[in-house]
Amino acid sequence: MTLSGKLLLGAQQVAGNKGVLHAVNPATGQTLEPAYTLGGADDVARACELAEQAFDVYRQQPAAVRANFLNIIACQIEALGDELITRAMAETGLPKARLEGERARTCNQLRLFAATITSGEQNRVRIDPRQPERTPLPRADLRQRRIALGPVAVFGASNFPLAFSVAGGDTASALAAGCPVIVKGHSAHPGTSELVGQAIQKAVAECNLPEGVFSLIFGAGAEVGAALVAHPVIQAVGFTGSRAGGIALMRIAQARAQPIPFYGELSALNPVLLLPGALAEKADDLGRQFVASLTMGAGQFCTNPGLLLAIESPALDQFVQSASQSLQAANAQTMLSPGIHNAYERSTACIANNSKVQTLAQGPEAASPNSCRAVLFATSASAFLADPNLHEEMFGAASLLVRCRDEQELIKVVSHLDGQLTASLQLNAADFTFAQQLLPLLERKAGRILANGWPTGVEVCNAMVHGGPWPATTDVRTTSVGTAALERFLRPVCYQDLPSELLPAELRDENPLQWKRLVEGKAE
Amino acid sequence: MTLSGKLLLGAQQVAGNKGVLHAVNPATGQTLEPAYTLGGADDVARACELAEQAFDVYRQQPAAVRANFLNIIACQIEALGDELITRAMAETGLPKARLEGERARTCNQLRLFAATITSGEQNRVRIDPRQPERTPLPRADLRQRRIALGPVAVFGASNFPLAFSVAGGDTASALAAGCPVIVKGHSAHPGTSELVGQAIQKAVAECNLPEGVFSLIFGAGAEVGAALVAHPVIQAVGFTGSRAGGIALMRIAQARAQPIPFYGELSALNPVLLLPGALAEKADDLGRQFVASLTMGAGQFCTNPGLLLAIESPALDQFVQSASQSLQAANAQTMLSPGIHNAYERSTACIANNSKVQTLAQGPEAASPNSCRAVLFATSASAFLADPNLHEEMFGAASLLVRCRDEQELIKVVSHLDGQLTASLQLNAADFTFAQQLLPLLERKAGRILANGWPTGVEVCNAMVHGGPWPATTDVRTTSVGTAALERFLRPVCYQDLPSELLPAELRDENPLQWKRLVEGKAE
Repeated sequence: MTLSGKLLLGAQQVAGNKGVLHAVNPATGQTLEPAYTLGGADDVARACELAEQAFDVYRQQPAAVRANFLNIIACQIEALGDELITRAMAETGLPKARLEGERARTCNQLRLFAATITSGEQNRVRIDPRQPERTPLPRADLRQRRIALGPVAVFGASNFPLAFSVAGGDTASALAAGCPVIVKGHSAHPGTSELVGQAIQKAVAECNLPEGVFSLIFGAGAEVGAALVAHPVIQAVGFTGSRAGGIALMRIAQARAQPIPFYGELSALNPVLLLPGALAEKADDLGRQFVASLTMGAGQFCTNPGLLLAIESPALDQFVQSASQSLQAANAQTMLSPGIHNAYERSTACIANNSKVQTLAQGPEAASPNSCRAVLFATSASAFLADPNLHEEMFGAASLLVRCRDEQELIKVVSHLDGQLTASLQLNAADFTFAQQLLPLLERKAGRILANGWPTGVEVCNAMVHGGPWPATTDVRTTSVGTAALERFLRPVCYQDLPSELLPAELRDENPLQWKRLVEGKAE
Repeated sequence: MTLSGKLLLGAQQVAGNKGVLHAVNPATGQTLEPAYTLGGADDVARACELAEQAFDVYRQQPAAVRANFLNIIACQIEALGDELITRAMAETGLPKARLEGERARTCNQLRLFAATITSGEQNRVRIDPRQPERTPLPRADLRQRRIALGPVAVFGASNFPLAFSVAGGDTASALAAGCPVIVKGHSAHPGTSELVGQAIQKAVAECNLPEGVFSLIFGAGAEVGAALVAHPVIQAVGFTGSRAGGIALMRIAQARAQPIPFYGELSALNPVLLLPGALAEKADDLGRQFVASLTMGAGQFCTNPGLLLAIESPALDQFVQSASQSLQAANAQTMLSPGIHNAYERSTACIANNSKVQTLAQGPEAASPNSCRAVLFATSASAFLADPNLHEEMFGAASLLVRCRDEQELIKVVSHLDGQLTASLQLNAADFTFAQQLLPLLERKAGRILANGWPTGVEVCNAMVHGGPWPATTDVRTTSVGTAALERFLRPVCYQDLPSELLPAELRDENPLQWKRLVEGKAE
């Protein structure tokens, strides 16, 4: 593969005329070739025109054809081999093993969506057959299925250059649902983006699908993103990134003549509650496990444990001691970009300078540029409750311990938290009664509740929820990871008394696809 | 039952202090007692406080308890007997048989939701059990269920004083999902609203549920509605009504610090496509059937057939003749309110005065006040395509026939339509090829597609979709009628490695509720 530095509009490589950008190796500060040409509203319009042309053809392909397409994308990504990993390492500073794991996750994710749409689960077919004898009025024949929403705009995240980027969860689930996708490529990893984009282009050609099923656009500033979200062809948006950026795009989606769903994943503290029984049993272990989760990938996970809640006790002091020791031995890792590193330095300095906050421990000083020096802060529950600044996410390996006087104060702190992606309980049997009290509260605060685990690590499976109440995400009804993610891009349509010849296959009496269906309210 | 003229805040009757309103009998112009006291932002705040207190208790009741509550609401409404029908007749001008049918629909709807939540269908439980041996990493135990969103605000419609009002589809589905409900009562039928509200209050007491599960507030102007949608406790809104009113409230929902789902059903033309084969076969019958659907309930249905599309032919002329004859014999019926009657007169006059529009037929002149004189207009496809005014809903028994030159022009007209609740095809076997061409287009325009039927009449069942693309509704992913309506008020939560003792019953291995669950992606 050769990197072109161009936009991928349908099957074409097109040079943008709005300037260029270069990727930068965050570990060395070195500029990476080639220069990436940047597009504008015209390129967005062209991609949207192609997507609209592709939509009806693509959405009406049998599920097996779309599944095959997803599988071929996975194969094409794997066929990129080391070139993809090498480029991603240079653009992100992430280690090889992590990127190889992320590539496996990305390809498995595509294959899982392929298997899911073949099963028809997500279509949730419902059939209420005709009741000609019913009184006082006969009932018509009514059949419901879900169809694709329309072309989708995807904004990839910097922290997962493969799994949440060009062929990441949003793209995979939208394509699985039957929606063409236009990706705004992340400026921090354009080469990685182009390689994956080329792999998708190849899969589109190999499957003889209309070229507009996929496009990839690079852009500077807000022009491309704003034009994409505002374009009438776009029917939904998937976004993973900063709170400010996400809210700005959400406002555009809302203000359209026709408002559209905006699925943004914005920010989270991912509180971990260290309950007394667990602390008394294994404070040292918990301290070590916490630091391992906190510093993984330089703390650059949406589900990084940025907040610890616990009740004062000698066991808590022991936890702090253990965590501090581990932290002091945790070598600094290169962060994804100079911008993310600067933001980390700013946000941790702001907390460190807060008079109500104590710095408990720090990692070793960083030797290379853009490295993340891990840090653990502590404050009191009353200070936390009084100061909204202490509720802000610090993106990176930083966490804040909130010391509570008793169970009631811990409950009060939880009830004042914003919405979260996750909430974790470290507990043993002695904590069950208290946990029973906490669970209804945690359900209202988070999309996923963990026991005796750490929030980093988001399994791609059927039961996963990677979502949560505002501001963790902009749409609490959904998940962006797991097979339920594709429901975001579907809508129900009901067919009344349609002759069998005109019915979609999955709605016909003979059920040729053998999908599970809800008939008269009963699963069959 | 005695009408109090007061707000129902939880278990209390409270007099509002923002003035009063009286219902008016639209058939006579007579003012109806009692005076209804109007509430303000303070009353909204009190109802929200009660709803918040009730929420966790109510949502955690077993499904069987909530089902019993819904069934008891239905019994309490039936126990109101003729008093409810008499009051509703006086407030709406609707005939007795229609209101009795609507009451049956309302109660059946409550009972259908009760049966649905007992089956657990809507919870869509998903279980991916622990895989301790998996390499390179073991998989955690992951279990997903759906829980209630939170307190819901409901704005009832004037045209269904029972089935889309205080205990209508939005209220029933939100209560079924586990959400407390606060209803803004419609000013056109406050007595009907209070009677039904009292029935719900009785059911709350009979079931020993927290009083905040239900409140009913009357208000003048926009204050109560705006305060309700803006209140931080409210987590979703159900609205059926005018486009302008719905959009104003939607903007408030979007602008909140925490934006919330807004489910608005706003307006639709409900196009009926008269295909050539069907016209050639049965133009006379179609003309009569059309007028029966058009004039039913003085045309005051969201799914009223306000637009006819057909290709010029002698058979179309015959249809027009038949429809005109039926229309001229269709007696005027009292409309719901003077306001609705005025709007009908204005919108039909505006179309009648359009130089590109011909008035084909009118019903007999009305003898009593606020009566709806039915009317059928016609225009050319080119005029329709050129004039957005011709795409506006006329709420009442008025319809516009668009005459097309050929199939291509008809397709062009369809592709320029806004989103619709329904699209209907009158067809026979000779039309199948053309219908195949039209269906993909209609799927993108409407939530329900009918063959050889008329859109009025919305069955409450599992497969129904009463929804559709903007501006038919504000959220194309949903339906406001049928059992899928309750999914609007649920959100997914995932539980990772939770000890069995702490898991909700429906997620435990032993499956005590015997609900269908998706285990490793397979329905069990």
